[in-house]
Amino acid sequence: MKITSVPAVDALLRTALTEDAGNGDITTESTVPATATAYGRYIAKEDGVICGWDIVRAVFDLLDPTIELKINVPEGEHFKKGDILAEVTGNAHCVLTGERVGLNLLQHMSSIATMTNEAVKKVEGTNAKIVDTRKTTPGLRYLEKYAVRCGGGTNHRFNLSDGVLIKDNHIVAAGSITNAVSAAKKRVPHTVKIEVEVEDFDMLREALDAGADIIMLDNMSCEDMAKAVKIVNGKAITEASGNMGERDLHEVASTGVDLISIGALTHSVKALDISLKFKLV
Amino acid sequence: MKITSVPAVDALLRTALTEDAGNGDITTESTVPATATAYGRYIAKEDGVICGWDIVRAVFDLLDPTIELKINVPEGEHFKKGDILAEVTGNAHCVLTGERVGLNLLQHMSSIATMTNEAVKKVEGTNAKIVDTRKTTPGLRYLEKYAVRCGGGTNHRFNLSDGVLIKDNHIVAAGSITNAVSAAKKRVPHTVKIEVEVEDFDMLREALDAGADIIMLDNMSCEDMAKAVKIVNGKAITEASGNMGERDLHEVASTGVDLISIGALTHSVKALDISLKFKLV
Amino acid sequence: MKITSVPAVDALLRTALTEDAGNGDITTESTVPATATAYGRYIAKEDGVICGWDIVRAVFDLLDPTIELKINVPEGEHFKKGDILAEVTGNAHCVLTGERVGLNLLQHMSSIATMTNEAVKKVEGTNAKIVDTRKTTPGLRYLEKYAVRCGGGTNHRFNLSDGVLIKDNHIVAAGSITNAVSAAKKRVPHTVKIEVEVEDFDMLREALDAGADIIMLDNMSCEDMAKAVKIVNGKAITEASGNMGERDLHEVASTGVDLISIGALTHSVKALDISLKFKLV
Amino acid sequence: MKITSVPAVDALLRTALTEDAGNGDITTESTVPATATAYGRYIAKEDGVICGWDIVRAVFDLLDPTIELKINVPEGEHFKKGDILAEVTGNAHCVLTGERVGLNLLQHMSSIATMTNEAVKKVEGTNAKIVDTRKTTPGLRYLEKYAVRCGGGTNHRFNLSDGVLIKDNHIVAAGSITNAVSAAKKRVPHTVKIEVEVEDFDMLREALDAGADIIMLDNMSCEDMAKAVKIVNGKAITEASGNMGERDLHEVASTGVDLISIGALTHSVKALDISLKFKLV
Amino acid sequence: MKITSVPAVDALLRTALTEDAGNGDITTESTVPATATAYGRYIAKEDGVICGWDIVRAVFDLLDPTIELKINVPEGEHFKKGDILAEVTGNAHCVLTGERVGLNLLQHMSSIATMTNEAVKKVEGTNAKIVDTRKTTPGLRYLEKYAVRCGGGTNHRFNLSDGVLIKDNHIVAAGSITNAVSAAKKRVPHTVKIEVEVEDFDMLREALDAGADIIMLDNMSCEDMAKAVKIVNGKAITEASGNMGERDLHEVASTGVDLISIGALTHSVKALDISLKFKLV
Amino acid sequence: MKITSVPAVDALLRTALTEDAGNGDITTESTVPATATAYGRYIAKEDGVICGWDIVRAVFDLLDPTIELKINVPEGEHFKKGDILAEVTGNAHCVLTGERVGLNLLQHMSSIATMTNEAVKKVEGTNAKIVDTRKTTPGLRYLEKYAVRCGGGTNHRFNLSDGVLIKDNHIVAAGSITNAVSAAKKRVPHTVKIEVEVEDFDMLREALDAGADIIMLDNMSCEDMAKAVKIVNGKAITEASGNMGERDLHEVASTGVDLISIGALTHSVKALDISLKFKLV
Repeated sequence: MKITSVPAVDALLRTALTEDAGNGDITTESTVPATATAYGRYIAKEDGVICGWDIVRAVFDLLDPTIELKINVPEGEHFKKGDILAEVTGNAHCVLTGERVGLNLLQHMSSIATMTNEAVKKVEGTNAKIVDTRKTTPGLRYLEKYAVRCGGGTNHRFNLSDGVLIKDNHIVAAGSITNAVSAAKKRVPHTVKIEVEVEDFDMLREALDAGADIIMLDNMSCEDMAKAVKIVNGKAITEASGNMGERDLHEVASTGVDLISIGALTHSVKALDISLKFKLV
Repeated sequence: MKITSVPAVDALLRTALTEDAGNGDITTESTVPATATAYGRYIAKEDGVICGWDIVRAVFDLLDPTIELKINVPEGEHFKKGDILAEVTGNAHCVLTGERVGLNLLQHMSSIATMTNEAVKKVEGTNAKIVDTRKTTPGLRYLEKYAVRCGGGTNHRFNLSDGVLIKDNHIVAAGSITNAVSAAKKRVPHTVKIEVEVEDFDMLREALDAGADIIMLDNMSCEDMAKAVKIVNGKAITEASGNMGERDLHEVASTGVDLISIGALTHSVKALDISLKFKLV
Repeated sequence: MKITSVPAVDALLRTALTEDAGNGDITTESTVPATATAYGRYIAKEDGVICGWDIVRAVFDLLDPTIELKINVPEGEHFKKGDILAEVTGNAHCVLTGERVGLNLLQHMSSIATMTNEAVKKVEGTNAKIVDTRKTTPGLRYLEKYAVRCGGGTNHRFNLSDGVLIKDNHIVAAGSITNAVSAAKKRVPHTVKIEVEVEDFDMLREALDAGADIIMLDNMSCEDMAKAVKIVNGKAITEASGNMGERDLHEVASTGVDLISIGALTHSVKALDISLKFKLV
Repeated sequence: MKITSVPAVDALLRTALTEDAGNGDITTESTVPATATAYGRYIAKEDGVICGWDIVRAVFDLLDPTIELKINVPEGEHFKKGDILAEVTGNAHCVLTGERVGLNLLQHMSSIATMTNEAVKKVEGTNAKIVDTRKTTPGLRYLEKYAVRCGGGTNHRFNLSDGVLIKDNHIVAAGSITNAVSAAKKRVPHTVKIEVEVEDFDMLREALDAGADIIMLDNMSCEDMAKAVKIVNGKAITEASGNMGERDLHEVASTGVDLISIGALTHSVKALDISLKFKLV
Repeated sequence: MKITSVPAVDALLRTALTEDAGNGDITTESTVPATATAYGRYIAKEDGVICGWDIVRAVFDLLDPTIELKINVPEGEHFKKGDILAEVTGNAHCVLTGERVGLNLLQHMSSIATMTNEAVKKVEGTNAKIVDTRKTTPGLRYLEKYAVRCGGGTNHRFNLSDGVLIKDNHIVAAGSITNAVSAAKKRVPHTVKIEVEVEDFDMLREALDAGADIIMLDNMSCEDMAKAVKIVNGKAITEASGNMGERDLHEVASTGVDLISIGALTHSVKALDISLKFKLV
Repeated sequence: MKITSVPAVDALLRTALTEDAGNGDITTESTVPATATAYGRYIAKEDGVICGWDIVRAVFDLLDPTIELKINVPEGEHFKKGDILAEVTGNAHCVLTGERVGLNLLQHMSSIATMTNEAVKKVEGTNAKIVDTRKTTPGLRYLEKYAVRCGGGTNHRFNLSDGVLIKDNHIVAAGSITNAVSAAKKRVPHTVKIEVEVEDFDMLREALDAGADIIMLDNMSCEDMAKAVKIVNGKAITEASGNMGERDLHEVASTGVDLISIGALTHSVKALDISLKFKLV
């Protein structure tokens, strides 16, 4: 299904359009004839992985479904600075009014896809996967997690409802890791794995004994991670976590961890530079 | 009025909560007693300007209005790495469930306020103001523009409906700058100023003659900007624009421009590092 | 862009349809065969300026996009009593169900366009423009301001967020007109003009000196307005305001004011009489 | 239950606030200190019946529930020009931001209540009740029908779903009045009466014979209405309809009809003049 | 009009899709090629009356309007166990994602239609109609009442706003049945009939004298109902009520009552067994 | 967190109230004084497990937060026919208006809790847990799954986004069980277990070899299930599925399966009989 069939995405686009053009585009309406046609080109100003064409398309659809969008670099593909990524042709009023909303998301999502892809390349040759976190922009989680997949990463749990991650508070509240894991196993859907965040080897061993499916190794040195991976010895999935955006990912991956989760993929996004240059035709 | 009285902000928070905890927090619900109390501290992991307390408060209110939030560093103030910015106490289920949504926005908004403030400091001693753009995160514009003000910047037009910015397409469509300005003056509310984007001195002179209120100097060298400011000679407001996030802001400001607009303030945000450390009490 | 692409307008039409036919049209459903076709004619029962066809079209689209609407008198044009303004043909259930919602808005908007046009004609030959106010029907502001433009008027600020109008309270709070204007200039977007409401010549002079862009002359006699216009002498835009719906507009316009704002255009609307006569075919 | 507990009313108020102050009140925010208190008085500029206090209260509640509203003339009561209808005290930012939305509805609803009351008085001494129609402002039907009741009128069906009104199209489609009434009786809830619109005495007699509960006498002379009432002879309710806003209501009522329905009560509303004068305290 | 043009139904379907596939169908997305086509058959696992095809169609439309739905047993028709009710062909991702939401409603609505039809058959040969109640599933009332009609039943009032039903509390509050009926007649729309719930013959006689249009006979024996029908003697509509789902409907109908209202039709629904068997093509 | 803090639940309640009392309760408003107080008692007409008090409370809160609800049988507890479950006291208008919406959900949810509890009791002494399915009422999934937990059951995956269940179509599309499991493992979040539906022992063995975490045994005889459990031998979780609502649950549980999923818990709900008897006080 198209990402724009996701009701939350559809709602976001309407909100964004209201936000940017809620009462019309007074410049365009006063200076451009209602029947003028605009032709524009999406041009890459830097290298990257493209992500978000369905969004651009859907924004135009909300304004005028007859606008044509010709995509030259398909979703998820790499492009180079200078590439013409796509071309748009249609009623000038509608194209100009919808331009910025689509572009803001295209640049944001492409940046995430590109950053993710860079991380994925750094761990090539190892066993590690790059995953995201819940540190996403409010309202954009579906799109941001989609962009991570576009860049070759995989997703961590979507939210608090569909994954278990037992942290220090939960452990304190439950009395012990053992208690917390046991309580979660009793209550949560059997379809969900139990993950435990550990900070040292004692916690790690208790979590393993309690039957944790996934072990999050929080803020460990690479040396300690390597040791942890050995202790786990395949009995659980291991996840390296904690400011991974600033670590040497290849070194981390070389410890043998299964996953490296990086909050910065979604919480610290520098818009990828794509310009949309128009001419009226 | 509180920013959370803005209907779009209230809607965003409900959307964000749905996104992150729409079907409950299954970890907390299964491991933490329903009556447990949590106490947490917001700790700065780097220096900055704080922005977003009303949001944090409002998220908790949606879950449990009896949660207490004690703010040590008030909205808009500077803080240092290591500062305890605020403390939260309340029902552990609700505090843990609402933690991430509030934090994601607090870190995002504080980062914008901090970046803006850094830019403002760079132009101190000049006449120039730092302003934002429409390159905001869809759904978050109000909050992002509020954060810019928190950091000492001022806002450009909010959207396409409440400001006129005549660009190349509008000029081509209208036939000339003169025609475009004249058409806009006839049609748009008299409360709105007319801004024209110019790329060279000919365009600049035509815009001035046409009665433009604001001149956007697009991607000019500092030398050219200084010359443009002289040509304008107080007859219009001047705005420096175009990748200003990567320019020497003091040098730009020293050309005498009135405004420097920076898209990066909102489109390229690196979440400011604030942690929330809990203990159950 | 079509007015019905404005998200707030789309939402209004769905609300209106829910309100009028939320659980179906029980009369039509029980008496008219599901496959019957209806043909109807929109007939003017008085002279006027038509406004709202996109609305009528959009309401039918929500029920059945195959309904045909043939428009004889295009948007914004004058018509005479007895004119057949448009013809509709389509599934009888859908046409009859959507009839009233579309008609209620068509009559309301056409009345505003007609009233505005009458006012515009009264000031012909002068410099004055007719503008609206914020005294609109809650939920219908976009449509009502659009109707004012359809009738040849122009719009005042859309709302509290996109225009500055300093009134007595703001002046008292700021300490003086000078302070208030100065505070606004510092804080509001540079794209927005500063308007000050004045009641006498002292206030007027202070506002001019403070650099107000627009002066609202509130409830002044024509003699005083003429005098005010002379004092202003082109240094600001002048706006006549205060029960203008009951004033001799030509006389007011002859004082030389630039704008005459009339709340009655939107707060006191007598539905223009348009009937929709059907026959089943 | 309060009218503001009606979900559609609550939604309207949020929409109206978004419309008027969606991105804040930039004048007030820049000129009035955040902690200032405003005191205002609602003053009648003409006589009338007040309607809408719950709305005014609810708008302020959305902004700041601590705002005090002291009502001097209670809902539904008469007042005279010059009366101080209510007083408001509270945070100046919130009071000024919410002022216009509340006032726009208060003036609109009070006007309907007042017009209705005038009509009710004209038919005093007769058997006739004044009722409204479906010619209401989209989005405001609940409030407008409430205002009609406030003024002493009663309501016609709320919408197409909860009342049967068989008009010419339905009769043509069903083949005859008899068929239409019979079809409706079979299909619609037994809780709903069957109304038939008639234009002459033949139609009237057929409707009566078919078992219509209510007869709408459309655009008849008073003489004909009197005759129709005699023919009906208590076997059905009679309703006078068709431009009743321009008829002599007492004369119509004197024909013996049970109901007079007046579209103008809601489709042609001249805002009742109420001013809100502030001072900062 | 299609039931899916009812705004509340459209909203329900979007809510249901969000609920079931808000963040995508991760199984299908990971195992089925994006371009695969699915062909499925809706097969009856028991006899019944079909109801809900427009819903099934509308759910698919939200995901992919090119999905084909071929209906073999039209809305409201009887079918036998083993019948192929419909066939669906389309993009496998979209068909599989939308399958469950459509099926859940189809089974629910068909069950109501079937149950209603069984009740209707039991009272064949009598004067009685089968009607529903307000004991519906929150959010599904329109669809459930539609399903009752599909099965041959008729609807009671839709909700508290469009019908009067005076129960014991209202009688106590008003002082007497006579007072309550009189108060209601004065206040409610004249299009609405007045129903009174009675428990004995004294109440019945008072209700009749007061002019009640409908008498609800609550929890009476058949003997008493027959007696009540005689007392009423055509002067009002009679409705048998109170656990009618567990009564011998033919016996109840034989007392001569006009209506039998059955809450169980909507509050106790056993999903009708319809399976959807796919093959990929 | 309260279930009514879940945004989807809050939205459902507002929808339900709109549906049942969108334009007010015309009976109560016309017959009961606005200041009357009502006192009512929730009385059990059969045995069960109570579920839904927060809903009842929240509905009253929407109408009047001062209504008192005294709960005698707390959430999740058993009660006997005749027990007074709770008492409500408050403004008669608001209590009567909100009564039915709350009751409809209370009866529905309590029925699910009670049915679930009966199933749980039948498998006591075995290893099996009772779980629900996605065959829920559209719009009510959160509440229905909560009610299952209230009755002692546990939840299956919430929706298509948060669990993997590979069925025949997925297997065909992927080429084999092995391929499908492998594809899912690569793509879905690592927090999610992989479930495969099998119909025979060959499929079972392939699924186990492929590394499935959960095996759904679809429509198997108890003998086959027992054999399957032995083959699995603890290497995966086993789930009995397929018309379990009509099977002997104890016998199924005795085969050693870990889970028994029952669609009927939510798709075939007979409202539990709870009455609310009022008196005005």
